[in-house]
Amino acid sequence: MLAFNGRFSEDRTLIERIRKMNYDDLYNFAEEIRKYMIDVTSVNGGHLASNLGTVELTLALYRIFDPYEDYIIWDTGHQTYTHKLLTGRWDAFKTLRTFGGISGFTNIFESPVDRFGAGHVGTSIAAALGIEKALKLQNKNANVVVIIGDGALTSGQALEALNQIKSQNSRIKIILNSNGMSISKNVGGLSQLLEALRTSKIYVSIKEKLKKGLNEAVEFELKKIKEALKVALIGDDFFESLGVKHFGPIDGHDLKSLEEALKQVKDYPYPTVLSVFTIKGKGYHYSEQNPTKYHGVDKFDPDSGTFEKPEGAYSYSEVFGTTLMKIALEDDKVVALTAAMPDGTGLSKFAKQFPERFVDLGITEQSVVTYAGGLAAMGFKPVVAIYSTFLQRAYDQIIHDIALQDLDVVFAIDRAGLVGTDGPTHHGVFDIAYLKPIPNIKVLTPLDGKDLACMLWTVLKGKDKYKGPIAIRYPRDVEFGKLDEIYGKIEIRSPFKWEVLVEGKEVALLAVGVLAKKYTDMAKTNGWTLIGVRSVKPMDKDMLERTFQSHKYIFTIEEGTVLGGFGETIAFEYLQKYSDKYECQVEIIGIQDEFIPHGTREELIRYMGLDSDNVEQRIKKTVSKGVRL
Amino acid sequence: MLAFNGRFSEDRTLIERIRKMNYDDLYNFAEEIRKYMIDVTSVNGGHLASNLGTVELTLALYRIFDPYEDYIIWDTGHQTYTHKLLTGRWDAFKTLRTFGGISGFTNIFESPVDRFGAGHVGTSIAAALGIEKALKLQNKNANVVVIIGDGALTSGQALEALNQIKSQNSRIKIILNSNGMSISKNVGGLSQLLEALRTSKIYVSIKEKLKKGLNEAVEFELKKIKEALKVALIGDDFFESLGVKHFGPIDGHDLKSLEEALKQVKDYPYPTVLSVFTIKGKGYHYSEQNPTKYHGVDKFDPDSGTFEKPEGAYSYSEVFGTTLMKIALEDDKVVALTAAMPDGTGLSKFAKQFPERFVDLGITEQSVVTYAGGLAAMGFKPVVAIYSTFLQRAYDQIIHDIALQDLDVVFAIDRAGLVGTDGPTHHGVFDIAYLKPIPNIKVLTPLDGKDLACMLWTVLKGKDKYKGPIAIRYPRDVEFGKLDEIYGKIEIRSPFKWEVLVEGKEVALLAVGVLAKKYTDMAKTNGWTLIGVRSVKPMDKDMLERTFQSHKYIFTIEEGTVLGGFGETIAFEYLQKYSDKYECQVEIIGIQDEFIPHGTREELIRYMGLDSDNVEQRIKKTVSKGVRL
Repeated sequence: MLAFNGRFSEDRTLIERIRKMNYDDLYNFAEEIRKYMIDVTSVNGGHLASNLGTVELTLALYRIFDPYEDYIIWDTGHQTYTHKLLTGRWDAFKTLRTFGGISGFTNIFESPVDRFGAGHVGTSIAAALGIEKALKLQNKNANVVVIIGDGALTSGQALEALNQIKSQNSRIKIILNSNGMSISKNVGGLSQLLEALRTSKIYVSIKEKLKKGLNEAVEFELKKIKEALKVALIGDDFFESLGVKHFGPIDGHDLKSLEEALKQVKDYPYPTVLSVFTIKGKGYHYSEQNPTKYHGVDKFDPDSGTFEKPEGAYSYSEVFGTTLMKIALEDDKVVALTAAMPDGTGLSKFAKQFPERFVDLGITEQSVVTYAGGLAAMGFKPVVAIYSTFLQRAYDQIIHDIALQDLDVVFAIDRAGLVGTDGPTHHGVFDIAYLKPIPNIKVLTPLDGKDLACMLWTVLKGKDKYKGPIAIRYPRDVEFGKLDEIYGKIEIRSPFKWEVLVEGKEVALLAVGVLAKKYTDMAKTNGWTLIGVRSVKPMDKDMLERTFQSHKYIFTIEEGTVLGGFGETIAFEYLQKYSDKYECQVEIIGIQDEFIPHGTREELIRYMGLDSDNVEQRIKKTVSKGVRL
Repeated sequence: MLAFNGRFSEDRTLIERIRKMNYDDLYNFAEEIRKYMIDVTSVNGGHLASNLGTVELTLALYRIFDPYEDYIIWDTGHQTYTHKLLTGRWDAFKTLRTFGGISGFTNIFESPVDRFGAGHVGTSIAAALGIEKALKLQNKNANVVVIIGDGALTSGQALEALNQIKSQNSRIKIILNSNGMSISKNVGGLSQLLEALRTSKIYVSIKEKLKKGLNEAVEFELKKIKEALKVALIGDDFFESLGVKHFGPIDGHDLKSLEEALKQVKDYPYPTVLSVFTIKGKGYHYSEQNPTKYHGVDKFDPDSGTFEKPEGAYSYSEVFGTTLMKIALEDDKVVALTAAMPDGTGLSKFAKQFPERFVDLGITEQSVVTYAGGLAAMGFKPVVAIYSTFLQRAYDQIIHDIALQDLDVVFAIDRAGLVGTDGPTHHGVFDIAYLKPIPNIKVLTPLDGKDLACMLWTVLKGKDKYKGPIAIRYPRDVEFGKLDEIYGKIEIRSPFKWEVLVEGKEVALLAVGVLAKKYTDMAKTNGWTLIGVRSVKPMDKDMLERTFQSHKYIFTIEEGTVLGGFGETIAFEYLQKYSDKYECQVEIIGIQDEFIPHGTREELIRYMGLDSDNVEQRIKKTVSKGVRL
């Protein structure tokens, strides 16, 4: 995998510098960092809002803890720009998320202080426990600190690791970076009150006063008890119930408070959670107003905060969301589900229109899938909208809860294939390979936005033959045209039929999903046949046979791993059923057996040789050698 | 998939009968049920201890709730024998876990009251939330009840769903069946005291007494407060912190207490957890003494409680555990990890010998894998011992935390292939397919126990070339001989080399892992070549080429899915690299694209046509037709 000039070695320059600054200088430096972040992300794109929120937190953290001595684990890694800037990547930051440049997440190949890479949420606590165990086994002393968001903490993995902290005799320090969502909302104030109760020794005081007959004074003290009890009755502290001491909450933009709290936590000899409240998008007018919009940004104008969206462009996510809304209008059994991604998956409008039939369970991919199973077992038609890479979290649930029970769940798999600048943690290149071996499931690959709309319509409003689990995969990409026109042209037809896009001879390309149309010109120019593969499982056996029958060279092309992918099954099918009848040469093109770096989607498609030029050269080279058999 | 005589329809006979019984009759009936369970499992095998523990709970539950009207979701489904007996499967229970008989778990194809099938832990709460949502959308009234064990509650999926209950405005009733393990230990007593505090109106009482000058009486009341506060200071209630009302704990073998508590829970208009303490293995002397031993049993003698272990037999798990212990003696970087399966994975002795280098995180497959990543990032050699089917839970972590970071983690994948009578939820037939597409990972398939020991030794104590993630898969099976003799014969050799077991001609079998030696006699008799495939990824390319070179018919055989499996890659390799040089016919034998039912391992291997007789017939049939190309 490509890395930026190899590894960044230890560089303490900025760490030392910030340790000598006074608060005024620090706040000025924080502003400088923010400006730099806005400048770079406005060109390169990136996770702007979350990084604007953690500037002071990172500055304070690296004044109290030492990133080169201690083990600082950033959950998800999408809030580590300040961390990168402070640890030797100030200049390199300009290359953020560009092909060959530094990663937008923590990456262990990039720097020794990126202790454990991430991109998906909730892994930090388990990784930290493992790292702490290693330190213990070596009798080494170092602090192990986790920074995790309140959203990430809703994920099963974070929760199950949190629950193990006490039994592992851990002393890890967790900094819970809350934007006022999920768990922390209930927990923050409560813990503060309990803390007061713990230190105030009310009971002792009352006893003393009773002895002296000070009834009025006792009544006053009792009022305090009443308050404390009220708190205990309203709710309990989640973290303390798991045996983890809970400090805070404190203002995550106040450097002095941060430093005092971090010092306290550092000295505390037991596992702790420190609640820190930060403002997502802090310090930039537009992102403070609308942090969701600036969570993950593409190119934008820093002055106006406006995005440069190509004219007439719409995304596959939009096609999905709008189509599902139209279907839901006609079919009240349709329920849409997401794991904290209503915007990304195109479901925001659906959520507003059908609040009762929209389910967002937070970042709980496992539970979302099983929940959908519950709905399906009751006769509903749940549609789980999820990114390909995140669906990996629910792999067991797909097999065990959905496919094994042959339940009617539709998986709308967004961000399938190469996602671009988010890079290797986010590419959706495994889904064909991991879904294919699961019995009962169908894996569909629409050729374009209209096809996606038609497929959704057909499988949800079609006949009994579309029962059972169905996955529909589509990329993080846009099309140009008028989105509304799609819906006038919905066709109900089998989603399992492939489509001949170009009729030719000698050479046939079986191109999977949205890749197919990239090769139209090439196929026409060369007189080759181009077939759009709309269904990876089941195969269109009729068209497959016709293809073998009338061509000498068969090329499969997919935006997914070659190993375990569509092409391998074609190889298997050919040898098993057709090689005695037809003499063909079968070649498989796809994602090679390596993790793909970040870069634009176009760069990466070229990097993997899936662009029209590369494919054409490869085909011509093969054909020039003649049929081998 | 095979099902027992189709679906069992509604049968309320026993439900009606138990509702008319007095407690004496019920306790007698409970004993009758226990005796029947012991009789059947002593012949058929099964989950004895957990089912002995839930007899009274199920009786009480079905007197208060109605399994045909309400939605009772049993987590994991391994404690549902009483449920099955009461819902029309009394006679059929004799066929438990036999080929064609009823399942040892809940199974939606078996009965309408098996509302949501399970076999893996922690899915119940999410499924219940989905079912409840469906009821709401239909304006239907029914109770939704979950029965979950304290062990299952440590799984991330259960925890993440639990955390969503409040925000989903759910009213589900969770019965937490505690055997005194994990979370419940801390939580149980505490909730009781808080409950007392809540109802006793201490504060009001004190105020009254103060007004009357009854200082002594006040002191007495204050003592109660002190107790309550002490509790609040020791810990908080986990469930209440998540907004779920916590009742109990109550004695799970006391029918009267159970019924009263269940009635209370039924009427309570908010989500609730009812803690029930049961004794695992209750009512059978031997299993009460040692519930772990009788958790999942094979054939045993009910009178003596002894198991009929075949003489001189040892399991692959034992080979693994003992080998790892010997390696750990020589290498202090080796750490063993399990997700609540020290016994099943053969690690019990390791745990005793090296308590500091043994990590059990409870049923948290995700966290165990990431934790291993943390250890590996620090230079340790973690070995994650896990069942193939449960590793599915950590799929994303394998990709994202281990393989992407190319960390040196060994996955010791037990129960790979067909596991036998546990059935479709437990077969480990997907691992080759789901691991193969992941870059960096190697997938090894030892040919026998000795080979497993040699491989472990080689990859853990070998050279740098064995870096990165390595998976070693082996089945739930035994070998005969003397386990100790293996360790005198350890060979350090490349785990990526295949082994020629029988030299022959014309036909070559590439048989994966422990399957290979089943075909030795067949290969010899027919003069065929038999190659033991010890590594699915990477391939032994030299031997592969030689095989194509000197044979006409190549058969791949694996105990894993054909789709995405080893054979498909052979088909791909052949077409891509060898078909221009050698003219062969390639055929793939493996697990077909269907979920495999339960039965003995031998029955299922035959059912899938992987036994020697079936394979021989298939090869002969192909050969008799001649080479097709």
